Amino acid sequence: MRNVLLAILCITFPMFLFSQNQLIMSENFAIVIHGGAGTILKKNMTDEQEKAYQEKLQEALDSGYTILKDGGSAIDAIEKAIVVMEDSPLFNAGKGAVYTNAGTNELDASIMDGKTLNAGAVSGVRNVKNPIKLARVVIEKSEHVMLSGKGAEDFAKQYKIEMVDSAYFYNEHRLKQLNKIKDSEKIQLDHSDNDDEQGDITELKDSKFGTVGAVALDKHGNLAAATSTGGMTNKKFGRIGDSPIIGAGTYANNATCAVSCTGHGEFFIRNVVAYDVAALMEYKNLSLVDAANYAVNEKLVKLGGDGGLIAIDKDGNIAMPFNTKGMYRAYKKANGESKILIFKN
Amino acid sequence: MRNVLLAILCITFPMFLFSQNQLIMSENFAIVIHGGAGTILKKNMTDEQEKAYQEKLQEALDSGYTILKDGGSAIDAIEKAIVVMEDSPLFNAGKGAVYTNAGTNELDASIMDGKTLNAGAVSGVRNVKNPIKLARVVIEKSEHVMLSGKGAEDFAKQYKIEMVDSAYFYNEHRLKQLNKIKDSEKIQLDHSDNDDEQGDITELKDSKFGTVGAVALDKHGNLAAATSTGGMTNKKFGRIGDSPIIGAGTYANNATCAVSCTGHGEFFIRNVVAYDVAALMEYKNLSLVDAANYAVNEKLVKLGGDGGLIAIDKDGNIAMPFNTKGMYRAYKKANGESKILIFKN
Repeated sequence: MRNVLLAILCITFPMFLFSQNQLIMSENFAIVIHGGAGTILKKNMTDEQEKAYQEKLQEALDSGYTILKDGGSAIDAIEKAIVVMEDSPLFNAGKGAVYTNAGTNELDASIMDGKTLNAGAVSGVRNVKNPIKLARVVIEKSEHVMLSGKGAEDFAKQYKIEMVDSAYFYNEHRLKQLNKIKDSEKIQLDHSDNDDEQGDITELKDSKFGTVGAVALDKHGNLAAATSTGGMTNKKFGRIGDSPIIGAGTYANNATCAVSCTGHGEFFIRNVVAYDVAALMEYKNLSLVDAANYAVNEKLVKLGGDGGLIAIDKDGNIAMPFNTKGMYRAYKKANGESKILIFKN
Repeated sequence: MRNVLLAILCITFPMFLFSQNQLIMSENFAIVIHGGAGTILKKNMTDEQEKAYQEKLQEALDSGYTILKDGGSAIDAIEKAIVVMEDSPLFNAGKGAVYTNAGTNELDASIMDGKTLNAGAVSGVRNVKNPIKLARVVIEKSEHVMLSGKGAEDFAKQYKIEMVDSAYFYNEHRLKQLNKIKDSEKIQLDHSDNDDEQGDITELKDSKFGTVGAVALDKHGNLAAATSTGGMTNKKFGRIGDSPIIGAGTYANNATCAVSCTGHGEFFIRNVVAYDVAALMEYKNLSLVDAANYAVNEKLVKLGGDGGLIAIDKDGNIAMPFNTKGMYRAYKKANGESKILIFKN
């Protein structure tokens, strides 16, 4: 009898351990966010400014993390985190969007669900308070992936997305940035990294890359990615960058990873950066960290493209590489491990 | 002395053969074009219609081929071939563009140079006669990759691109297509392949996928790809499909291949199809034919996406897979081998 009990124990105890492990696996959730990459240097930032960014990143991170912790979906978590950043004037997205050459604000956003590969994107919207919410509704209610301009706004009105007057985006600091750039085409075209450059120029370069993004893995094993931006200060001709382009600025696939990019969009489009990280993992068997590093610090650098990305894989591994001076970035894992970073190192 | 001459001959003759081989290598040019994929069935087409398509495809093919044969660049060759198709009412691009829900014509195009990875794209232009010419000027004259809407037209005017009145795109056949689709939302959403479907529906499905594209390898070993479209009949909300999106509808890289896609654009965006073919070659060491087949007949089919693509690699290999009933397609190689095909087999 004792032998039988012992035998039962020998069989059930490993099963118990295994089921516990399964439980731990399904608790392997995490969220990563960014607030843009660029020439972000400590010497050009006051303690108050640094604190303001840290607090807003913390708020965005926590808002998404809470959803994940409560068993919510990755796509809900990243949408919420991005809304927090869109509603802040600190980032070049939503409320803080930079000005176009014409003095308007034209916003882009995209979101992708790694479970279904469904995606939604909008470009050039002027009166949508939260472009990421509109991109989400494109997934839910449209047979299309990408809507643009006035058409996208008509779609937004049809689905009762909150619209705002263009005065909502009024921002003296951003207007100053535009006027400076308007006076000197040279500054707009200058993408060189120079530690000695003055604060004004740094500001411009910073604002140019102030896109926000979020990626997450939820308890159900689903990945999602999203990106939102006000584009480039002084942009002309209805320019569309990488942020609303699935594959370039945003990509998610449960089989590999979720990625959101920030940087000089043209280079991210030409290198199809977000999808490239997934392809390097799936086809070349690189780890998430190696794939993300290769895309940002090898391929983008070779082409001359400034920027960075955040990524998370199906196992909860995280990567946040960038080839600029700094990148507003933060993550929080299921085990409580969390970091908020701005500068290099 | 005779031995010395023999020795010289033994050394120089293989060198002569090698140099000839090098010459043959550099003569390994080719061009491939498509005029759209869809429910294209012989039973729904008169002999006259079939002949008209064959003749126009031949004209486009020859126009690009001549440039390649004369030592011109791949990008010049594909631009020329696409202009021929844009100027014909037979295809859903340029002159033959379908109508949007609002009764306008909104055209998209993109082009990529495999040597430099430079790319140009335009979306939603209404009065540009040849959107592919505009996309080419975006490469040459803009620091951006993608321009849209009215902004793209302002850019076009600045660079003296030929503008046309919207009457240029007037087409009774296309208007009839729009009015039929407007009356029945069901037809617009019906993407099932059914041999028994009537001509009217076939026409609609055909028109929907009537995008044109071209890829080429030139004597200098450079690849290029381009795509041009009128989008979807009855499209609303400023919808942007895959054609103007680098990575989705168009991609070229001398290291791998050049690709132009046609089909239900949303699925091509979600699968990042054009770049995926290149990634499968570079990272998974698949041949061009295997990579193209996997992207179209495995991955797209799994997601439910109808369409096809044309591709050429750095060695002049060609692939033209599609998962629809037919695809207007043609190629011509340096050795004179050439084919014009419309239906399956």
